[in-house]
Amino acid sequence: MSPLDLDRSESWLTREELDNARERLPILGVHAVPVRVDSTGAAESVGLLLRASDDGHIQRELVGGRVLYHERIRDALLRHLEKDLGPMALPRIPVSPQPFTVAEWFPTPGVTPFHDPRQHAVTLAFIVPITGDCQPQQDALDLAWLSRDEALVMACSTDMAPGHGALLQQALAHLGTL
Amino acid sequence: MSPLDLDRSESWLTREELDNARERLPILGVHAVPVRVDSTGAAESVGLLLRASDDGHIQRELVGGRVLYHERIRDALLRHLEKDLGPMALPRIPVSPQPFTVAEWFPTPGVTPFHDPRQHAVTLAFIVPITGDCQPQQDALDLAWLSRDEALVMACSTDMAPGHGALLQQALAHLGTL
Amino acid sequence: MSPLDLDRSESWLTREELDNARERLPILGVHAVPVRVDSTGAAESVGLLLRASDDGHIQRELVGGRVLYHERIRDALLRHLEKDLGPMALPRIPVSPQPFTVAEWFPTPGVTPFHDPRQHAVTLAFIVPITGDCQPQQDALDLAWLSRDEALVMACSTDMAPGHGALLQQALAHLGTL
Amino acid sequence: MSPLDLDRSESWLTREELDNARERLPILGVHAVPVRVDSTGAAESVGLLLRASDDGHIQRELVGGRVLYHERIRDALLRHLEKDLGPMALPRIPVSPQPFTVAEWFPTPGVTPFHDPRQHAVTLAFIVPITGDCQPQQDALDLAWLSRDEALVMACSTDMAPGHGALLQQALAHLGTL
Repeated sequence: MSPLDLDRSESWLTREELDNARERLPILGVHAVPVRVDSTGAAESVGLLLRASDDGHIQRELVGGRVLYHERIRDALLRHLEKDLGPMALPRIPVSPQPFTVAEWFPTPGVTPFHDPRQHAVTLAFIVPITGDCQPQQDALDLAWLSRDEALVMACSTDMAPGHGALLQQALAHLGTL
Repeated sequence: MSPLDLDRSESWLTREELDNARERLPILGVHAVPVRVDSTGAAESVGLLLRASDDGHIQRELVGGRVLYHERIRDALLRHLEKDLGPMALPRIPVSPQPFTVAEWFPTPGVTPFHDPRQHAVTLAFIVPITGDCQPQQDALDLAWLSRDEALVMACSTDMAPGHGALLQQALAHLGTL
Repeated sequence: MSPLDLDRSESWLTREELDNARERLPILGVHAVPVRVDSTGAAESVGLLLRASDDGHIQRELVGGRVLYHERIRDALLRHLEKDLGPMALPRIPVSPQPFTVAEWFPTPGVTPFHDPRQHAVTLAFIVPITGDCQPQQDALDLAWLSRDEALVMACSTDMAPGHGALLQQALAHLGTL
Repeated sequence: MSPLDLDRSESWLTREELDNARERLPILGVHAVPVRVDSTGAAESVGLLLRASDDGHIQRELVGGRVLYHERIRDALLRHLEKDLGPMALPRIPVSPQPFTVAEWFPTPGVTPFHDPRQHAVTLAFIVPITGDCQPQQDALDLAWLSRDEALVMACSTDMAPGHGALLQQALAHLGTL
């Protein structure tokens, strides 16, 4: 018996009706907040990507993206971190699957602090210490390391991609330094 | 810009290719561990559903199911609890979106402790105090309240639906009473 | 064998040297962030105490205080909530001992965001839904329920007792609404 | 105003009465569960100390001990890990102050799963990846790395120091592998 088949009242969900899934299903993703830590594990700085949005606007972003079919969450975190920070970033993926928060991105504004006009997405958010050398990859223009104070200012600015500022603030709070 | 569109390298994901989503996407769900608490918030007993599986086997199960499109996680929890425990169960949905764990159900056995032959599902798990009267609904044959000691024995038995025993043990650990 | 006696190198800690403990030991405490929740468990408002400080200044504060010898953390939470909010507040103490954060109050400013000139204190912080009627007790002048937006503004204001604003912000972040 | 002085009704706590603090105050400590992780952050093995108890019994133990006056929790974790595992262990102290659980050790048996005949102690528990070489120090006879399955068996055996088996089980649950 399938753990997600408990709700047999939802038998309307036939194979055919799963077409156009993105308009019908929440999409699962991950977000990572890259940090540099000192020898006691305390976060010294936070890494933010600089990226051009579709309309040419330049924005600061956290690392993140979709979880693929048959991919573990920790493998998705590693893949997105390597994709954005390069193969020498040496991220320390957390030992526990418990995220520090879960962000619910709705196509309708105002339901949660997170709005995504294209889809209903749910991302599990983790803080990830980075120990190696980062080289922004692909369409990322730059990676900047901000002190915790600078990160807090940035989290409240309009330079952050929508929703990413709120998620960054929640990460800083979880670090105990807000 | 969409938070889950960071990975543009995944542009293979066209609308057409989303057909047959269940074979291509991880499905998002929730699990709830119903508990009765005393006036200090300490868990006194754990609620388990008795249900007939597809092959006629009788099994103990936690409450759970899918998160629907445009449904908040807390609304999905409430819906599944009311569906399984009835409209008078009066569950206390947690204030924070942080789950105590995340269970990754893979169609391939052995990747994680959770196996679901039908799909790749990811469920966010929460402990939910129940304050009202429970009436098992629909296809649930019974709801049993077990003491924490009884629940621990049950968690290790083959009477639990596959994976549900492991999740129950993790819940008991999170309660600090394992 | 005692779990905290592992460090036998600290054998300097004789009975006599435990005199004047407050100058020699970290003091354990709890903090509670009272919230009103809707039927889905979402926090609608946050409760703050209005109190006169020792120098006659009026300040907003969270609920909290010391854990006594041979007192469970959940009993300490309940005692402090009833002491400050009255016997009819009906708080829902969390089921799990995992706090959303741990605040370290140092007599030296700048070690952490939390400063307490009188002692080294460590407080475990929990968000606690309140379901009954609150009557501020003893030296509390008033209890105010603030919306989450109002609470966020208050958290950054100088009307909060030192450190309580930072703790309130961390609580709002944990609620997912920052 | 002191954050732990909210309870002025406890004015019985004069300086003199703090004498013999250990019989009057809960003692704050930390516990660390050492793990070896693979490149995806998944725990592969758990480290347990072998130590002779006061009565000559040989027992398996987690790392841990007291938090000193004016010591940060992360510094206490580092100190106890270096004390027990040696200076080359290179532990990765967690970035967040949120422990995976809080263990309450009572001098009276049965209040919680944790019993300490000498004192009332409260320990914050963290899982700590170890990346260097371990050399058991001082009175530790050996350090053994157990697979997760072996660790689960050990957690239920009487070879563990009292309470340490329960804490180890809770750690394995938090790792998602129980």
